[in-house]
Amino acid sequence: MNKLDQLCEVVCDNNAMLAINGLVTLTWGNASAIDRRAGLVAIKPSGIEYEDLTPEQIVVVDLAGKPVRGKLRPSTDTPTHLALYNAFESLGGIVHAHSTYATMFAQARIEIPCLGTTHADHFAGAVPLTRQLRPEEMDAYEQNTGRVIVERFEGLDPVRIPGVLVAGHAPFTWGPTIAKAVENAVALEEIARMAHGTLQLRPEASALESHVLDKHHERKHGAKRYYGQA
Amino acid sequence: MNKLDQLCEVVCDNNAMLAINGLVTLTWGNASAIDRRAGLVAIKPSGIEYEDLTPEQIVVVDLAGKPVRGKLRPSTDTPTHLALYNAFESLGGIVHAHSTYATMFAQARIEIPCLGTTHADHFAGAVPLTRQLRPEEMDAYEQNTGRVIVERFEGLDPVRIPGVLVAGHAPFTWGPTIAKAVENAVALEEIARMAHGTLQLRPEASALESHVLDKHHERKHGAKRYYGQA
Amino acid sequence: MNKLDQLCEVVCDNNAMLAINGLVTLTWGNASAIDRRAGLVAIKPSGIEYEDLTPEQIVVVDLAGKPVRGKLRPSTDTPTHLALYNAFESLGGIVHAHSTYATMFAQARIEIPCLGTTHADHFAGAVPLTRQLRPEEMDAYEQNTGRVIVERFEGLDPVRIPGVLVAGHAPFTWGPTIAKAVENAVALEEIARMAHGTLQLRPEASALESHVLDKHHERKHGAKRYYGQA
Amino acid sequence: MNKLDQLCEVVCDNNAMLAINGLVTLTWGNASAIDRRAGLVAIKPSGIEYEDLTPEQIVVVDLAGKPVRGKLRPSTDTPTHLALYNAFESLGGIVHAHSTYATMFAQARIEIPCLGTTHADHFAGAVPLTRQLRPEEMDAYEQNTGRVIVERFEGLDPVRIPGVLVAGHAPFTWGPTIAKAVENAVALEEIARMAHGTLQLRPEASALESHVLDKHHERKHGAKRYYGQA
Repeated sequence: MNKLDQLCEVVCDNNAMLAINGLVTLTWGNASAIDRRAGLVAIKPSGIEYEDLTPEQIVVVDLAGKPVRGKLRPSTDTPTHLALYNAFESLGGIVHAHSTYATMFAQARIEIPCLGTTHADHFAGAVPLTRQLRPEEMDAYEQNTGRVIVERFEGLDPVRIPGVLVAGHAPFTWGPTIAKAVENAVALEEIARMAHGTLQLRPEASALESHVLDKHHERKHGAKRYYGQA
Repeated sequence: MNKLDQLCEVVCDNNAMLAINGLVTLTWGNASAIDRRAGLVAIKPSGIEYEDLTPEQIVVVDLAGKPVRGKLRPSTDTPTHLALYNAFESLGGIVHAHSTYATMFAQARIEIPCLGTTHADHFAGAVPLTRQLRPEEMDAYEQNTGRVIVERFEGLDPVRIPGVLVAGHAPFTWGPTIAKAVENAVALEEIARMAHGTLQLRPEASALESHVLDKHHERKHGAKRYYGQA
Repeated sequence: MNKLDQLCEVVCDNNAMLAINGLVTLTWGNASAIDRRAGLVAIKPSGIEYEDLTPEQIVVVDLAGKPVRGKLRPSTDTPTHLALYNAFESLGGIVHAHSTYATMFAQARIEIPCLGTTHADHFAGAVPLTRQLRPEEMDAYEQNTGRVIVERFEGLDPVRIPGVLVAGHAPFTWGPTIAKAVENAVALEEIARMAHGTLQLRPEASALESHVLDKHHERKHGAKRYYGQA
Repeated sequence: MNKLDQLCEVVCDNNAMLAINGLVTLTWGNASAIDRRAGLVAIKPSGIEYEDLTPEQIVVVDLAGKPVRGKLRPSTDTPTHLALYNAFESLGGIVHAHSTYATMFAQARIEIPCLGTTHADHFAGAVPLTRQLRPEEMDAYEQNTGRVIVERFEGLDPVRIPGVLVAGHAPFTWGPTIAKAVENAVALEEIARMAHGTLQLRPEASALESHVLDKHHERKHGAKRYYGQA
């Protein structure tokens, strides 16, 4: 099996994981991965159900969006994925899913504050919110969605904050691999759900103290990390 | 297999989908489809559980409600379905289900505002709410339920808004086919759930800007749509 | 199979249904049925998990609570069941389950108002709430739980209102058969969930108009009922 | 099979139960058991998924944290488990899980009040909340987490209150056996969910009267208990 076949297979498997993890209703989500050396992105085709998806159906495009492989149309959100891969060198995979609780925050246009260690284990601070797109940005809508995300990350590190809420829309998450992007999508949905319930109990709930936030993020992701086996 | 047999089979399968998609508790829901050429409607029998349902049990009536086929009583809601098929030419299938979150809005008598692109992808604006039926409308109750829905759609396009909340009751959704009606029922329940949670986070959450609403609806349903493969 | 064996089997099956329908956590619930002619009640043994339950483990007692059959201790709630069977002639089966949303109302000590037709289809009015038991009622605690339920139903018809919330505790439901008691427990949990969400959307949500409430209850349970096949 | 093999097997099985009972997302939880006679604690390895876990992967340490068996790193939370085993003689097993609703209370930094008999059946009073750890306590962070729990239990009986919320973090539960610790984790999550919903219905909901709280706790755990078969 060549490298591109392998990429399509892992992209197929990880799109299936979106459904298995309850992150998607109908076909409201997609995952992609990039082969940085070849400059190629493999992504879910548009409107296909997760359980029916085969590696042969995965679409491959280059970083300018030119089709390279596959008979189906790529996800309509492909230009957003490409904008992120182009802007953020560290990204190996991206997930977009209208998962329930994260989408509530995107719709309410409220950033998800870091209210506990569960959040800090995955996101080193609040999950940021983009601005809404303007009428004149509707033409290259999907590309501009990527642009407002990149704009929002001015001064933020996409490695330490591996996801974002697009205002009035839904979240994107990412990671060094597509599997990590899916893991971050799972984590984001659960921390959104926990934050939602926490704010119902105490609307003025205070953010986690920075010394605990840093400690938790560092023990899992820092240079001296000691969580896990690697 | 003749055309009516096929209709009954697809109606049977799509009623089963209501249970599979978690839209119904006990026997609180039903789906129907119409053969426009023959003027015949096939619908779930009343009070039968979804998992036990067979194509032979599906009941067929004409557009005046006259029984054409089947030994069982049709759903008590049949006159509502017929009123909608008679009023809205574009309908090929109808779903009625007391799905949890959509029913909350029907009970609170609040229209579901379009708070995000998930909503805009399926409903081109708020999901409308009927008025409550009056005491003198109790005699032909189910028929009058259809009548208040049609009344509410004065000035609305049932193609762009494929569903409604009946005040104090529950939603109806529809589509060009029964499968699309089920898909819209699934979408309605999830956008109701997301709207419910969004309003808890921010009671005064503002509706999605019209330029984004139109963009999302058009990219999926407009003349120049580019979502999906068709 | 003799009649008592049959009773134990149906009681075993319907206790299993509590778990299958998601009404119970751990062993927080029990179901019983009565053979009115023999004056015998079959009930779940205390503390046994639902999936492990066999008909042989079902305990049979008479209406005074005297053990008639079975090696295990009956549910600690048996005296409550007996008090209800003794007071309400129409009961053929009883379910007690700490189901999530119904228990929230019991804990909040708020009756579940009839906010929609889903509720009206099963309960012809608000689901009533008992008073809290007093310190001097702790000795025959389970029997007194039955007593405060009967006290609360003064002027209410247990056929039209097939369930109750015990303040600070959880619901009991019943029916002409144990299967109907389970069905009412399923319905109660879902209408509690819908009412909970409705009240979050609109705390002052108004009760369903009586003409619709009566219409819905009558079309399903009245002398001229036309819902279902029987 | 020797005693330590048995301990590892039961620890493996009960970690799997965390996932089966829906208490964990990703790898956010761990369970341990102690052999008091040998002074050895068996615990989940760090970052391993529950479904893949084998008894051979379970790590054994002594009460000072010295590795005794196993090739993998133990859970990062091991020093917290050890602090609790060292402080509370009665503990045979401990569970730590970022279960959704219990974590909401931990994040809101609100103790879970005893609002009903479901709670009283498992916890003889409110589920307590620790203070937040201070910056200078970050070095031996996991050990200090154990210390603030022990500090919080000054004057409380860990047998009657078999769990705690760590502020800004998540709960720990325990029991005389690891199976009981898991059972208490399941109970805690459900009573947290019920309390959350109860407080939404009535923010000023009053605690269960002490005579009912004591009655329920005693009938299940007291010297004259009569719940269950033992």
